[in-house]
Amino acid sequence: MQLGVVGLGRMGRIVVDRVLDAGHDVVAFDIDEESVAAAADAGAEPADSVADLAERLGADKRIWLMVPAGDAVDAALEELGPHLDGDDVVVDGGNSHFEDSVRRAEATDAAYLDCGTSGGPAGADVGFSLMIGGPEAAYDELVPVFDAVATGPDGHARMGPAGSGHYVKMVHNGVEYALMQAYGEGFELLFEGRYDLDLEAVARTWNNGAVIRSWLLELCEEAFREEGSDLGDVADHVAGGSTGTWTVQEALAQEVPVPLIHGALAERFASRRGRFSRRLANRLRYGFGRHEVARR
Amino acid sequence: MQLGVVGLGRMGRIVVDRVLDAGHDVVAFDIDEESVAAAADAGAEPADSVADLAERLGADKRIWLMVPAGDAVDAALEELGPHLDGDDVVVDGGNSHFEDSVRRAEATDAAYLDCGTSGGPAGADVGFSLMIGGPEAAYDELVPVFDAVATGPDGHARMGPAGSGHYVKMVHNGVEYALMQAYGEGFELLFEGRYDLDLEAVARTWNNGAVIRSWLLELCEEAFREEGSDLGDVADHVAGGSTGTWTVQEALAQEVPVPLIHGALAERFASRRGRFSRRLANRLRYGFGRHEVARR
Amino acid sequence: MQLGVVGLGRMGRIVVDRVLDAGHDVVAFDIDEESVAAAADAGAEPADSVADLAERLGADKRIWLMVPAGDAVDAALEELGPHLDGDDVVVDGGNSHFEDSVRRAEATDAAYLDCGTSGGPAGADVGFSLMIGGPEAAYDELVPVFDAVATGPDGHARMGPAGSGHYVKMVHNGVEYALMQAYGEGFELLFEGRYDLDLEAVARTWNNGAVIRSWLLELCEEAFREEGSDLGDVADHVAGGSTGTWTVQEALAQEVPVPLIHGALAERFASRRGRFSRRLANRLRYGFGRHEVARR
Amino acid sequence: MQLGVVGLGRMGRIVVDRVLDAGHDVVAFDIDEESVAAAADAGAEPADSVADLAERLGADKRIWLMVPAGDAVDAALEELGPHLDGDDVVVDGGNSHFEDSVRRAEATDAAYLDCGTSGGPAGADVGFSLMIGGPEAAYDELVPVFDAVATGPDGHARMGPAGSGHYVKMVHNGVEYALMQAYGEGFELLFEGRYDLDLEAVARTWNNGAVIRSWLLELCEEAFREEGSDLGDVADHVAGGSTGTWTVQEALAQEVPVPLIHGALAERFASRRGRFSRRLANRLRYGFGRHEVARR
Repeated sequence: MQLGVVGLGRMGRIVVDRVLDAGHDVVAFDIDEESVAAAADAGAEPADSVADLAERLGADKRIWLMVPAGDAVDAALEELGPHLDGDDVVVDGGNSHFEDSVRRAEATDAAYLDCGTSGGPAGADVGFSLMIGGPEAAYDELVPVFDAVATGPDGHARMGPAGSGHYVKMVHNGVEYALMQAYGEGFELLFEGRYDLDLEAVARTWNNGAVIRSWLLELCEEAFREEGSDLGDVADHVAGGSTGTWTVQEALAQEVPVPLIHGALAERFASRRGRFSRRLANRLRYGFGRHEVARR
Repeated sequence: MQLGVVGLGRMGRIVVDRVLDAGHDVVAFDIDEESVAAAADAGAEPADSVADLAERLGADKRIWLMVPAGDAVDAALEELGPHLDGDDVVVDGGNSHFEDSVRRAEATDAAYLDCGTSGGPAGADVGFSLMIGGPEAAYDELVPVFDAVATGPDGHARMGPAGSGHYVKMVHNGVEYALMQAYGEGFELLFEGRYDLDLEAVARTWNNGAVIRSWLLELCEEAFREEGSDLGDVADHVAGGSTGTWTVQEALAQEVPVPLIHGALAERFASRRGRFSRRLANRLRYGFGRHEVARR
Repeated sequence: MQLGVVGLGRMGRIVVDRVLDAGHDVVAFDIDEESVAAAADAGAEPADSVADLAERLGADKRIWLMVPAGDAVDAALEELGPHLDGDDVVVDGGNSHFEDSVRRAEATDAAYLDCGTSGGPAGADVGFSLMIGGPEAAYDELVPVFDAVATGPDGHARMGPAGSGHYVKMVHNGVEYALMQAYGEGFELLFEGRYDLDLEAVARTWNNGAVIRSWLLELCEEAFREEGSDLGDVADHVAGGSTGTWTVQEALAQEVPVPLIHGALAERFASRRGRFSRRLANRLRYGFGRHEVARR
Repeated sequence: MQLGVVGLGRMGRIVVDRVLDAGHDVVAFDIDEESVAAAADAGAEPADSVADLAERLGADKRIWLMVPAGDAVDAALEELGPHLDGDDVVVDGGNSHFEDSVRRAEATDAAYLDCGTSGGPAGADVGFSLMIGGPEAAYDELVPVFDAVATGPDGHARMGPAGSGHYVKMVHNGVEYALMQAYGEGFELLFEGRYDLDLEAVARTWNNGAVIRSWLLELCEEAFREEGSDLGDVADHVAGGSTGTWTVQEALAQEVPVPLIHGALAERFASRRGRFSRRLANRLRYGFGRHEVARR
């Protein structure tokens, strides 16, 4: 099979390499020329533009977009538009909002698959988990590619119609926030608590047979090994938050209670600026009890 | 009626003044001699010691303890012990744990009333809210004193047997934490949000007819008036927490969900040191996504 | 001053009565003819339609809309449109989303005031709290009406430009949810806890001098008086939720942590259907510990 | 090595089998005679009583207690007491509170190891995760046994002094509650949300390469496979909670914020009876807004 890949950042490049390794052909494009050259060195056919990539693919195009969510996806689809027809298949492997994917699926002449991709750079070795939404026939057609990019046949599945792949990925990320915070609360209690513990040893022992063993816990173990039990100079600041925000927004729309996911997201927000609510509580304690006000 | 008052700090002094104002007699003691002298200037009979206070009261002693919760209450009771019999009544008006009050009620020869006191220094003018536990006869006996100290007849009531007064006060304080944090979240959203608002005007408008009007909201209004809508140099640090901790402990014992009260208490804890959980989340985002780690 | 009032439901009728009581003139319309007749009995001039109301007002119209948020507001504005010019003032006193109010303010020829109204039916006696957004001149013009409808001069204020009135009201309601849940947690602990308490007496004692006294707590006191300490047959089901949802949505947009407000909203959602998350936890306990699965 | 095992329930029996499989000798006792006979069939030497077990072990006894936390541990230690001296080692492999373990370590003549054991019945095949507190020399002495019972050398470690093993296990369980609830919130949103999803397929796809893959997620996959995506007749009721309660209690003592762990625990409490707080909120909405009260 021949696959066009648009977007050769860290994740796109992994797609290229895994598809090539599986014996397929790849036509590759990125706005960064060096990335294209590097992909060519790895065995991909380089393209000069999105249009050039489309032309090189001929009929029955299979194209994987791995560009940042948002305008970049729409821009790529606009460039591809004149070259696409109903025999073609476009996969959006990025972190798009599921409603954008529904809209794009309707607007595109090609069959459109929204593909939530999880596993991060580590997926280069073990493969990704791919959650895919869209037409069943298009999914079936692309199975050889998904087999190559995913951890294997169990690492990808069609979730349902358009948008369902990114929907499931969105919820995956909401859960991810809460899991990270849950481990964080546990390790915080161990760190601040009664015993002077080697947190790498704790995580390693847990990862070998305990109920809470997981890949995230393996990453905790790695973090303590590399940074020390006190996490060295790692700051009290957590970036990101868009997919967690989408998850809570959707939970509000569905009237589903998600206090842990919201709590984990709120913790990120709180890590990024002082909390006015605490300043007010500090002052109110003076108001009713004449407790001294801490000033800064 | 004649009342002995042990402990002449801010709250004890208010008790003295309100009881004197109501036309009763007061014998007053504190380990701080100046406080005793000041109470004497106000019309109280000064005592040199707890024992002296007990002797001056004669038979059928009525004694109000207004000392810090904990050892100070036990110390006062130990000194009083030899002077007490079953015709005497002791009121603990401090913030004691209800289990201590149950224990003390059993250990004391006198009738023992545990009295949760709310209202803070502002109670000097409007009177306190008094939540009282212990024998009904002793409560009835002390009604004239409670009428004087409380906002009036509706400002005090017998909740139930020993410990129930401090139990209700404990829960009061847990609720208080959550109310403060609830207002705090709202004002934080207004402060950080889309409009440049005069938060004193917001609070004043709310206090005049809105569903959420309250005394705490009047204190918010006062805080914004005195500190400005940005709360000036008031720090992101909230002291205190013992009664809130007791409330959550009791909720655990009773298997009652109190996520808001716990959340408000946790916010205080979080205001007092960096959060390890966030530092771990920051590092884990590198682990799975190679996102840059913020360092300090 | 002459005021047109569109919408004579419970809240609209209170506006009519309070404005008439203050000595102003009212022209009243509602799609329900009986409501119009009742308002006429109270002294208002009846109108047959929105258009008729507009014509009866003549130049410099002042019109108060008190219709359900959403389509009804747009419908009323569409009917009014041909009759309005820049000398007219329209007040939306309903629970509109602030973004709708911004949009309507831009689309309307008249000066547009968005007015968050709090206090509920009880406002008939004490007046409402009115949070108003829009042009300063229009607000100043309407002050006599606001004085009549609000608790008095302190019960209304201009918060800022278009949308700010409904914005502040939205946050007010989010805080309201959290306050209700905070009191609820406290009373739940008292109800389930160690002592057999008269919750009306608890609430009454708190309302007289305690730090947490408030109007909502007065309503708790009333609820326990009318339903009993066990709340009788009141169901474990909480309706509503739209303004709380808006508050959390806006907090997400502003990246402001609101775990208590979200928690209170989630509790409403949870009251309305079984929780799948618990069913999964129940089953998982079998998975790792062979604990018996509760079946229904 | 020869090991005495007291307590032959599901977990104790796994210890016996794994230690026998590793080529060691086992003397086994349980108050249930059939369990002793079954262990004897598997190759263990049966004992008639705790005292008999102690005598059969001779000098340098190594004894593993696998009895329910609480009184059963104290009872076993009391029976063992007269037979123990400083050359003996006792391991408590149950779910004891760490403070009990500290107390028992001080009260016992033998070296005492508190051993948190995680992995559940599934540990029969893969081995357990063992978190061990107590004297280093005793731990070193028992390493061959721990190697047999654990997943291997990385599945056990000495955490620190007396109590630290059960301390780390307590926190493990608190994290476990929060992880379960986090997955639960995600699957609840998927179940109630916009798409009709095969939740087993979702879990399987996630377990193959996704960031949130874990053993608990494998158990979710198994649950959906066996019960269906709607979890069939699995009830909205979660039993258990003691170790989670201990975790929150310790977090309160250490002033560490654990809103997610507390939230997960509160969800269990809430699954077990109606929520008074919601009933009050339902009634309060009538109080301020005359919204209809849902009755039961």
